[in-house]
Amino acid sequence: MTINRIPISVSEALGRVISRVDTLSEEAVPYTESYGRILAEDLRATNDVPLFTKSAMDGFAIRSEDSAGAGGENRIAFEVVGEVPAGASSDYVLGPNEAFRIMTGAEVPKSADAVVMFEQTKETETGFTIRKTFRPDENIAMQGEECRTGEVIVPKGTHINPGTVATLATFGYSRVKVYRQPVVGIMSTGSELLDVEAPLERGKIRNSNGPMILSQLKRMNIEGRLYRLEADDVDTLLSRMEEMLREVDVVITTGGVSVGDYDHLPELYKKLGAVELFNKVGMRPGSVTTVSFLGNKPLFGLSGNPSACYSGFELFARPALLKMMGHDKIFAPVVEAVLDEDFKKPNPFTRFIRAEVDYVEGRVHARPSGFNKSNAVTSIARSNGVIVLPGGTRGFEKGDGVKVMLTDMTTGTDRFDI
Amino acid sequence: MTINRIPISVSEALGRVISRVDTLSEEAVPYTESYGRILAEDLRATNDVPLFTKSAMDGFAIRSEDSAGAGGENRIAFEVVGEVPAGASSDYVLGPNEAFRIMTGAEVPKSADAVVMFEQTKETETGFTIRKTFRPDENIAMQGEECRTGEVIVPKGTHINPGTVATLATFGYSRVKVYRQPVVGIMSTGSELLDVEAPLERGKIRNSNGPMILSQLKRMNIEGRLYRLEADDVDTLLSRMEEMLREVDVVITTGGVSVGDYDHLPELYKKLGAVELFNKVGMRPGSVTTVSFLGNKPLFGLSGNPSACYSGFELFARPALLKMMGHDKIFAPVVEAVLDEDFKKPNPFTRFIRAEVDYVEGRVHARPSGFNKSNAVTSIARSNGVIVLPGGTRGFEKGDGVKVMLTDMTTGTDRFDI
Repeated sequence: MTINRIPISVSEALGRVISRVDTLSEEAVPYTESYGRILAEDLRATNDVPLFTKSAMDGFAIRSEDSAGAGGENRIAFEVVGEVPAGASSDYVLGPNEAFRIMTGAEVPKSADAVVMFEQTKETETGFTIRKTFRPDENIAMQGEECRTGEVIVPKGTHINPGTVATLATFGYSRVKVYRQPVVGIMSTGSELLDVEAPLERGKIRNSNGPMILSQLKRMNIEGRLYRLEADDVDTLLSRMEEMLREVDVVITTGGVSVGDYDHLPELYKKLGAVELFNKVGMRPGSVTTVSFLGNKPLFGLSGNPSACYSGFELFARPALLKMMGHDKIFAPVVEAVLDEDFKKPNPFTRFIRAEVDYVEGRVHARPSGFNKSNAVTSIARSNGVIVLPGGTRGFEKGDGVKVMLTDMTTGTDRFDI
Repeated sequence: MTINRIPISVSEALGRVISRVDTLSEEAVPYTESYGRILAEDLRATNDVPLFTKSAMDGFAIRSEDSAGAGGENRIAFEVVGEVPAGASSDYVLGPNEAFRIMTGAEVPKSADAVVMFEQTKETETGFTIRKTFRPDENIAMQGEECRTGEVIVPKGTHINPGTVATLATFGYSRVKVYRQPVVGIMSTGSELLDVEAPLERGKIRNSNGPMILSQLKRMNIEGRLYRLEADDVDTLLSRMEEMLREVDVVITTGGVSVGDYDHLPELYKKLGAVELFNKVGMRPGSVTTVSFLGNKPLFGLSGNPSACYSGFELFARPALLKMMGHDKIFAPVVEAVLDEDFKKPNPFTRFIRAEVDYVEGRVHARPSGFNKSNAVTSIARSNGVIVLPGGTRGFEKGDGVKVMLTDMTTGTDRFDI
C-alpha cells in the first residue's frame, strides 16, 4: 500500500490532536488517594481563613483606645487580667486598661482589638506599661482576611500535588471529585524486536520502546498495558486489535509506521475505521509520527527510533493524555538552556531530541542523549528532557542557547547550589 | 524543660544530616518494576553497540578500493549482485566492482567497506555508476563504535527513569539490583489538630501537614505511614514510639518542636536515647527544625507551620531520603527565577518559602505560596517549589531575580512556547 504523506507543522499536528481529544468522566476518590489526579470540581473554602480573629504576635491583647496618648515619656499602664492560651478563648470583657496575655495564633477576645508585643512593654507588678499608641487591629489577623467561606480557592483542572492535598485536608474535603485516568495500551511492532530475556541475534534488537513508554506513563501516574499482537492473517489481527481496543482508552504503537514492506499498521487502522489526523510531521526524528482516532480513542503511531519514540510521546501523547485527565496545564515546561555538546547536523526541520538535562549554578544545561564515546556512559539512561532546535539552521555549537522541554524532574543534581 | 538552642547555618545543618545518613541495603527487582528506584550496580554493556557493522544510509554496499579514481567525468560502474534486507545478512563475497543493495540499519557484508547513497548513483541496466571516490567505512556505522561489551554504560546511583528502563531492556537486564526504599513514619503532634472529617472548632485546625508529607513522599516513590500517638502518660507514649520505630526507617514529626509548654517531643527523644544533630537552624520559617538520630534512623522534627513544614521536608528530609535510596544526585535542581510578587519582610536570615513556580517564554517565574486576596485563589494548592531568599537583605520586589528549588515538575504550563 502506498500512502500519500503530506507533512504538517508540529504546532498544526499538536493542535489537531488536542482539539480532537475529550476529557474523560468524573469520579470521587478519598483525598488520601487523590495525589497525581486532576480536580474535576472547583474547591471552595468551607470556612473563613483565619477562622477567627487571632493574634499575630506573642504579647498582650488590649483595647486600642486605652493606648491613646501613649508616647515618649508618657507610659500608659495595663493590668493583666488573664491569659488566652492557643486553642482556647475567653468571654471575659476587658475593662479600661485591662489586658490578656496572649500567644501567637490564639483567639483575640471580642473586647480587645490590638496586640502589644512583649518587646514593646515594660513589666510591672500587676501588668505592664507601654509608650506607643496602638491602631485598631494592630498585630491582629482578622477573621476571613485571607479568604471567605464559599470563595473558589482551587479551580477545577488543577493537578493535585502535595500542596493541593494539604488544601483538601485544611478545608475538610475527605473525598474529592477527579477525572478518570486513561488506560493506555502499548503495542510494539516489528519482526526485528526481541523480548528482554532473549539472546541477541544479528539484525534484531530488544524491545526497549514498550517498557520506556510504560515508564513515561507511570511518571504521569497512568496505567499502561503492554500488548503483543501477532497473527498469521489480517482478519485474526483485526479481531485481536478490536479486543484490545475494548480494554483501553488510548493505543500507542511504536514502529510499523514507516513505508517499508512489513508495516501493516496503517492498513489495519483503515480497516478498523480509524480517522487519520495526520501521518507525517515536519520534524526530525519522528517525521512518520501518525495520530488517528477511532471514535474518541486516540491511536498514536510513534516512530520505532528510540529517540523519536521518546520525544513523540512527550510532544503528542503527554498533552493529549493530560487533556483526557482534565489537566488545565497540559504542556511540558519549556526553559532556555545551555547546549553542552555540538549538534552539527544540518537542520531543515524542527528537531526534537531526547536529552539529558542538568542544573549548574542556576542555569539549565542540556546535551543530546546518546552514547558518548569519551566516557562510555550512555546519557540515554539519564534522558530527562527534549531539546528543541528550530529548523532552517545549519547546526548548533556547545554553549549556544536552546529551548528544552522538561519532562522529568525526579532527577536532581549532585550540587547544593545555594 | 528548657532547651539550649544554638542556631547553625542551613549548609552546616544539611551537611550534618547527609554525612550521618547511611544508604540502605540492596535488593533485586524485575526491570519492569524498577522505575523510580536507584541502581545499586554499575550496568555494563552486554553487547557491542552497534552489534554489527551496518549501513548508515539507504544505498549500495561496495568495496571502497573499487571506487579509486572516480571523479569528474570518470564514472565507475558497479553491478548489483544481491540485496541485504534489514534483519538479515549475506555471506556472499563481493568481487571487483560488485555491490549489494542495502537499506539503513542492515548489516554490511564483510567483503564490503563503504556505502554509496542512492542519490550519489546513476542507474544502469545491471547496477549503477558513481563519480566519487569513497573512503573505507564511509556511510557505515562500525560494530562497537558507540560502546563495547563490558563497558560501564550506567553508573550505580542513577535514578531509574524511562530512559534508564529503555537501557535495561536494550541490554537484556530483566532483573536489576536497586537499593531498598525507606519506610517513613509521619507523626503529627499538637492538641490543636483535628482530623479531616472533623467539624472545625475554634482554636483548632485540621491536620494538613501529615497528608502533605505523605504526598511529598509519594512523589518520591516512597511509602509513608501516618501515625497518631496519644497517651496519658510519658511511659505509654514512649513504648508506643518504640513500637513505631521498629516498623519504619525514618520518622518525621510535624509540630511539637517549639519551646511552648505542651511540646514533649524533645524530651521523649532524649528518653529514647536519640542523638540530636541540631535543634535550631538560621533560616525562616522553620528555625526550630530539629534532626536527631536513633541508631541509624533519622528523626526529622519539622515545624508545624505549613510552609516551614513543606520547605523543611524538601530541604532536609528529601536529600537524606535520596541518600538512603542510594541516589547520586540528592539535591533538588536550583534555577534562577523571576519573582512575581513583592516580598517585603525584612530578612536577617535565609528564607525558604514554599512557592508556586511557572514557566513563561523560556523563563522560570515564582511567587510565594499563600492566600492571594486579589483573586481569592490560594497558590498553596499549586506550590511546586521553594524560593530561596538570602539573609541580610531588606526585602525583594516583583521582577527581582531569585533562586528557586524545583520540587515538583509534574505540573506544567498552559502555553506551548516553542
